Amino acid sequence: MNIHAKRIKDLQHLLKQSKLDALVVTRNLDVGFLTGYHMDDYLLLVSRNSAWAIAPKMFVEDIKVRAPFVEPVVPEAGFEQAVLALCKTHKLRKTAFDPEYETYTRGSLWRKHGFAEQGGLVGSLRAVKEGEEAADLRKSCRIAAKAFGLIKPRIKTGRTELSVYRELEDLMQAMGAKGPSFNLIVGFGPNSALPHHITSERRLKDNEAVLLDYGCVYNHYCSDITRTYFHGRPTEEFRKVYAIVAKSQKAGLAAVRGGVKAVAVDKACRDVISDAGYGQYFIHGTGHGVGLEIHEFPRLNTKFEATLRPGMAVTVEPGIYLHGKFGVRIEDSVLVTRTGCEILTKTA
Amino acid sequence: MNIHAKRIKDLQHLLKQSKLDALVVTRNLDVGFLTGYHMDDYLLLVSRNSAWAIAPKMFVEDIKVRAPFVEPVVPEAGFEQAVLALCKTHKLRKTAFDPEYETYTRGSLWRKHGFAEQGGLVGSLRAVKEGEEAADLRKSCRIAAKAFGLIKPRIKTGRTELSVYRELEDLMQAMGAKGPSFNLIVGFGPNSALPHHITSERRLKDNEAVLLDYGCVYNHYCSDITRTYFHGRPTEEFRKVYAIVAKSQKAGLAAVRGGVKAVAVDKACRDVISDAGYGQYFIHGTGHGVGLEIHEFPRLNTKFEATLRPGMAVTVEPGIYLHGKFGVRIEDSVLVTRTGCEILTKTA
Repeated sequence: MNIHAKRIKDLQHLLKQSKLDALVVTRNLDVGFLTGYHMDDYLLLVSRNSAWAIAPKMFVEDIKVRAPFVEPVVPEAGFEQAVLALCKTHKLRKTAFDPEYETYTRGSLWRKHGFAEQGGLVGSLRAVKEGEEAADLRKSCRIAAKAFGLIKPRIKTGRTELSVYRELEDLMQAMGAKGPSFNLIVGFGPNSALPHHITSERRLKDNEAVLLDYGCVYNHYCSDITRTYFHGRPTEEFRKVYAIVAKSQKAGLAAVRGGVKAVAVDKACRDVISDAGYGQYFIHGTGHGVGLEIHEFPRLNTKFEATLRPGMAVTVEPGIYLHGKFGVRIEDSVLVTRTGCEILTKTA
Repeated sequence: MNIHAKRIKDLQHLLKQSKLDALVVTRNLDVGFLTGYHMDDYLLLVSRNSAWAIAPKMFVEDIKVRAPFVEPVVPEAGFEQAVLALCKTHKLRKTAFDPEYETYTRGSLWRKHGFAEQGGLVGSLRAVKEGEEAADLRKSCRIAAKAFGLIKPRIKTGRTELSVYRELEDLMQAMGAKGPSFNLIVGFGPNSALPHHITSERRLKDNEAVLLDYGCVYNHYCSDITRTYFHGRPTEEFRKVYAIVAKSQKAGLAAVRGGVKAVAVDKACRDVISDAGYGQYFIHGTGHGVGLEIHEFPRLNTKFEATLRPGMAVTVEPGIYLHGKFGVRIEDSVLVTRTGCEILTKTA
């Protein structure tokens, strides 16, 4: 069975478990995940036995070819009216929508028509990567990891952050990537101390930190990796901080496995940095899910409630940021397994 | 005054006009438009006299440098709670949110606390491009237009659609673009008849249509252009259809000016195609606003209610699609002026 047809079956199974007749799926990424046809501006209604794509006329031919397991419906008087009409015709009495991703305007309309609020159904399917998508994610991560070995020797004194950014993109595209998976961060010197630095025209000087936080999109799947190193002879302080972050990241990776709470991975990383006296300089969470989105379910921080399951893909990325001096972050994307994790962004 | 500081002043002026004390801005693009600091996961509360950025700790240093006209607030117990606390402290009695872009979950929370629904305030500011942003949009469009002259002679028999896609991206990046403004469409032969074709490994054959629908992002601003031509000796049918679409697009461009209804531009294009007997093959709207998003307010179709104002940027892109044979679409991005429009994507 086509993986997308299978996902719709999986969702139909969840509908039964949740005692729902149908789910209206309006979030683009969720729609694309379920059909394999990634396109803005159409939506799905999935019942226990059927699936309809409510779409503009110009999508119909594509849908027939790419997602023959859903039935295209061209709305005559608005997408919402088409959904309501299908619910009526097919006697779908308990239809739900996801309140976290539906707009207030449309959510209010669904509520007015008696729809139920039910979050996380498609999200729970998306969190676990299987078959082709695990393969695509692996490939995406491998491309990103390889690019580090290629770009590092080319980062010389005098180069701008943006020129490195563009070359990183080119290197990954040459290996088959569609493009970057986010606004890649290239930070030289004190810019490495800004976790969300915006890559600039600053030039690299001798003897300063280089931070690369980047990734690519391969067949819709996003990779995420960060490497930090010292260009020149590292200072004592850089060596010390780097060693602490490396130890923290190792502890985080060691904590990842199926059945473990997300907060436990954060704690494993954070304890190492706090014990070394740098707790106040680790100013972000430890990681996040990665897949069709660069940031997706679950989050790995001090609060987020989730249990890691085999097949989930997450990042582990502790950091220490010394404002005005330098920052160090080390990040890998990993696949959770029953006994540990598979590091997808291993570099030499 | 910094353009972003001015935009916040403009919004504060709209608050007074709308008899609101404050607006909570949660949509990333709107937040970035107002502050110039484009980053996910932070939000704004703008009152008549103040503006706060409710943001994670790691954003604070960046916000101080890039948007000194907003006050960063690090939430202690959630973003929403921080907004509610500010409203209380500063006695903001009538705060609004945009129901079209707020999630149902958060919108319900705002409603519970007595917030008002008010759409389109930031949207109306974003629709009119002024100063630096008009300059960025012009540059974005010029890069895209130039790329057509460079790529066309390189599109030879045997090349794949995806290889052309990648070279188009590279050409635009070499001219300063950050990246593509959407999933660029390169369609050869019958693929040109799918308005939202997904660029593939198909190779170009002698004597068939080539459709390129593409654009780039330059300093956050998106360009959009489509060109169609025949690779080889055009068939009689292609010549005929091309001439009709060209006439339709010319009529659309001639209809654009400040004060004109968006539907009138659609009608100008559609009438030409209908009169020629191809009405049923023009299966989409005539155009859309373009700016920070590739598709934004307003839409130019048979229904959307909006009046064009000088400074708005829109596309004009009629098309005829003959399934299994070929499609022709011609698209330009234009800036609306008082007396007509400035074509931003002119090609030789």
